[in-house]
Amino acid sequence: MKLSSLILILTTISFVSTDVPKITTPVNSINRPVIHLTPPYGWMNDPNGLWYDEKDSLWHVYYQFNPNATHWNLPLYWGHATSPDGLNWNHTGVAVAPYDKKSGAYSGSCVVDDENTSGFFSGATELDQSKRVIAIWTFNHHNSWAESQYISYSIDGGVSFKDYRMNPVASINSTQYRDPQVIKYVNGNDKWWVMSVAKSHQYRIQFYKSNNLKNWKRTSYFELYGLLGYQYECPNLAKIRYEGETGDWKTQADKNGGYLWVLFISINPGSLQGGSSTEYFIGTFDGLAFTPIKNYAAPIDYGKDFYALQVFFNSPKDGDNSQVHAIAWTSNWQYCATVPTDNWRSSMSLIRKLQLTDFESAPGTKIAFIKSTPLINNENLRFGSTASFDSTTTKLDYFHPKHTIDFSDSLNGVIKFTLTWTVTNGQWTKSNPANFYLDFKGYALPDEYLRIGYQAEAGAFFVDRGNTNVEWVHTNRFFTDKISVNVQPNSDGSYSVNGIIDRNIIELYFGEGFQVLTNTFFMTGGNFIGSVDVSLDMIAYDFDKNQYCEPFTLKLEAQQILDANNS
Amino acid sequence: MKLSSLILILTTISFVSTDVPKITTPVNSINRPVIHLTPPYGWMNDPNGLWYDEKDSLWHVYYQFNPNATHWNLPLYWGHATSPDGLNWNHTGVAVAPYDKKSGAYSGSCVVDDENTSGFFSGATELDQSKRVIAIWTFNHHNSWAESQYISYSIDGGVSFKDYRMNPVASINSTQYRDPQVIKYVNGNDKWWVMSVAKSHQYRIQFYKSNNLKNWKRTSYFELYGLLGYQYECPNLAKIRYEGETGDWKTQADKNGGYLWVLFISINPGSLQGGSSTEYFIGTFDGLAFTPIKNYAAPIDYGKDFYALQVFFNSPKDGDNSQVHAIAWTSNWQYCATVPTDNWRSSMSLIRKLQLTDFESAPGTKIAFIKSTPLINNENLRFGSTASFDSTTTKLDYFHPKHTIDFSDSLNGVIKFTLTWTVTNGQWTKSNPANFYLDFKGYALPDEYLRIGYQAEAGAFFVDRGNTNVEWVHTNRFFTDKISVNVQPNSDGSYSVNGIIDRNIIELYFGEGFQVLTNTFFMTGGNFIGSVDVSLDMIAYDFDKNQYCEPFTLKLEAQQILDANNS
Repeated sequence: MKLSSLILILTTISFVSTDVPKITTPVNSINRPVIHLTPPYGWMNDPNGLWYDEKDSLWHVYYQFNPNATHWNLPLYWGHATSPDGLNWNHTGVAVAPYDKKSGAYSGSCVVDDENTSGFFSGATELDQSKRVIAIWTFNHHNSWAESQYISYSIDGGVSFKDYRMNPVASINSTQYRDPQVIKYVNGNDKWWVMSVAKSHQYRIQFYKSNNLKNWKRTSYFELYGLLGYQYECPNLAKIRYEGETGDWKTQADKNGGYLWVLFISINPGSLQGGSSTEYFIGTFDGLAFTPIKNYAAPIDYGKDFYALQVFFNSPKDGDNSQVHAIAWTSNWQYCATVPTDNWRSSMSLIRKLQLTDFESAPGTKIAFIKSTPLINNENLRFGSTASFDSTTTKLDYFHPKHTIDFSDSLNGVIKFTLTWTVTNGQWTKSNPANFYLDFKGYALPDEYLRIGYQAEAGAFFVDRGNTNVEWVHTNRFFTDKISVNVQPNSDGSYSVNGIIDRNIIELYFGEGFQVLTNTFFMTGGNFIGSVDVSLDMIAYDFDKNQYCEPFTLKLEAQQILDANNS
Repeated sequence: MKLSSLILILTTISFVSTDVPKITTPVNSINRPVIHLTPPYGWMNDPNGLWYDEKDSLWHVYYQFNPNATHWNLPLYWGHATSPDGLNWNHTGVAVAPYDKKSGAYSGSCVVDDENTSGFFSGATELDQSKRVIAIWTFNHHNSWAESQYISYSIDGGVSFKDYRMNPVASINSTQYRDPQVIKYVNGNDKWWVMSVAKSHQYRIQFYKSNNLKNWKRTSYFELYGLLGYQYECPNLAKIRYEGETGDWKTQADKNGGYLWVLFISINPGSLQGGSSTEYFIGTFDGLAFTPIKNYAAPIDYGKDFYALQVFFNSPKDGDNSQVHAIAWTSNWQYCATVPTDNWRSSMSLIRKLQLTDFESAPGTKIAFIKSTPLINNENLRFGSTASFDSTTTKLDYFHPKHTIDFSDSLNGVIKFTLTWTVTNGQWTKSNPANFYLDFKGYALPDEYLRIGYQAEAGAFFVDRGNTNVEWVHTNRFFTDKISVNVQPNSDGSYSVNGIIDRNIIELYFGEGFQVLTNTFFMTGGNFIGSVDVSLDMIAYDFDKNQYCEPFTLKLEAQQILDANNS
């Protein structure tokens, strides 16, 4: 977090509580996402301290939390929530607080110090070693705004933290030195802690090494790569199995037990979508320095609401393999302070499993790329009504370009859907127009709708979030209406997208998940989606055959989600 | 150009002429830009073959031209226009034609072979050696769609071209091998031609060397850098004086006579703005290989309509210094085929002078960056009415948040303006709200307006092109309404932007020109801008002083442009 994101206060002042708030029950709200994590009230930004409790199979998510207002302001805490499945979220209150009520406990990470390298857990004999949690975070002191790295430890499994008495553990007298992420580097019998910290305005990620989390030695840096924008934030380094077979990535993975390393960097402001976004680089890491294999900057998400991605420390094991999971903040600093939600603002993405493999990003060209899969298990969901469409049985043509599907008997504003379509030879042709759109329409006010669709001649899938009566959407200067991504076909030539709509978030995972498009949208509160119009966007006339063209193949399967009832 | 940009034909077929069209007079059109180059009729995309005639002080611009329809289709020609000033454009007809009416003369470049290395000019004894123009372009053969590099020479100073009989000069049996740009590399007494060609789907720029433009030897390649999107197109390599004083850029420039090299690459589709954009890399070039100094990908323009940038071969000299000038296509493949203009489509940007120097992109951090200055000399313009605003004399406050300036007595839809504003300490504070917007309103239909403005808390300047009655703007899937750029202050802490509005293009040059935002916009035909509303966007209340905040400082100077009458 940074100063230039200060909020314009119009006619009210927020009074700052001097107590750490204890309230843990979310206030109900008609526009609150159901399966996405939101703050119980107040303000949320970056995810922090993500870790997975292997013993209890529990996901821990902390986040930048201002309990005193629905916009960013100091003091800033680490809020905390846990989930058994990434869909049900239990709020456990504030976990980390700043020393000073005019300052902030800024972003950072958690590790499990299972071997008690820090010594903090010597007295906590009853604590399982899988729960020896240490938070590493940035304290900014309001006197100088200097940012230093602090550590705190928890002897109750991550609910509350005690600060290390000799903090800070890293300090360089800079106002632009933040967002520490710590991982455990293991190479045979050698292991040590590695910390990545952003020297934001220098576009530099500084790496450190430690044996005890207290004493850090500077090792290397990575700077001036990819898109820069105004600054780098939230570096995250992740070791990840390379599942591909291509070129230098394969060569390097073979040398490193099948693994490569990914460095995620968030930039804000100054992303090309406008405002905030996250990019990543693929390379090797020897415990001291990160070396990219190629030099491309890959977007982890093409939407306007996916920032400050952070990777979980630990993940459920998949056989012998370590998995990698991540979460990001689904908003944008350009407009986050004023989005039209009531007693809370901002949410997190679903937890995403990240894998690294070969992506055919252009015909014949395979490059290593992250694919994302949302952690969403149907067994944890309670479903309502369903809607489906199949163009092979329900014809769309020039005379009948639209088909309406009602699924209003379990209105909840939460929908899971899969859309598949084909384009001849992976290419638009005159006799096979593939342009279509879907309008997810409000039930009470059907003139409000979220439109998504594909246009083959642009090679792109779009979201149009501008069709709403919510005035803020139109008057806000940065809430872009149309957002798109160039999408590639599946290996069989078809296209597909898995979508999750959750009140005011839409996450779209294309194909195998190499491309994801995450955006917020806002319709009148309570105007939950009650129907879908499936429409041909344009009908081509085939002059060779002297007839209107055959429609493309399009299938939709959608289900309303009532809640994530995993009991 | 590529196949996936094929156009959906609704109810008409375009009949392809088998003759090269001779018409050179543009058809008048109410929505045609006045000082930006547009095709006389039909379709334009990439700029091609840019060169500057030093003897006659004339800018030559060629462009991808389909005279038979207002969308991309084959055959595709090189249209040609010249200008003494970059503002007045004279159309001279088709310069390069494909061999085959089902194929295309695709993008490429021109060089001046002043020393007749090619031998083409041995018989042209009356032709000044400064006019020995050779075009290097991609021919795509409709049988295989294979792309090869062809050369053609002109003995009439670039108006018409004859094809080399032994074409192609470079061929690798690929459909993704195009957009050759040739420069003359000079190092002391050594000199040779260097060609850059995109192997598009491989994200590779291939470099070649030749002594005669006919025989090319492959030397090196540059691949997988920066943003990739779907493919690389239109590589452009430029030698440019480094005017900065910083780090490795200075060290390398000192070793190379004060010069560095910039490699421009256009990506489409798949840019993060959606669709098409151009990025660049800064490095060194030894005549054989390009080596980046750092690894950031810099955007040359942050707008949605600036693609396929090409650098002029030769430029007016500035003392002993070579200058670098460039032009780009101001549209986007996502929607270019359907923009609401009548008998023509697309335009070029103004010619921009490019310089390389230090940009303080974040406080305290200087990086080498291109700054752009539009080639627009007031002496070449005939001005109409003016409009000005000064917040120090015309107060805006809570009770009077808006001021309207009429300048409707010379309606023409072409406006040149400068906007300067200040924000305390380069930072928004509660007592100095700097948020404002300007509505450039149509005279006949004042409910149509182009809105631009700044919000300090987002650190961003925005264009909102969505306030129009033109239905296409709202129904097109990719014509994003709000586009923004994070802008940095000038060295004195103030902010400024120089703007050019030309019927349906707005180019915004921030500060010294390190950041440019170019976008098209569309209002009802003939609804030229007749007034400007200057508005405070939000008024803050200063609780310390118990009063509404003082307005920021804002100055506007605007002039209507009647035409570029340089006679």
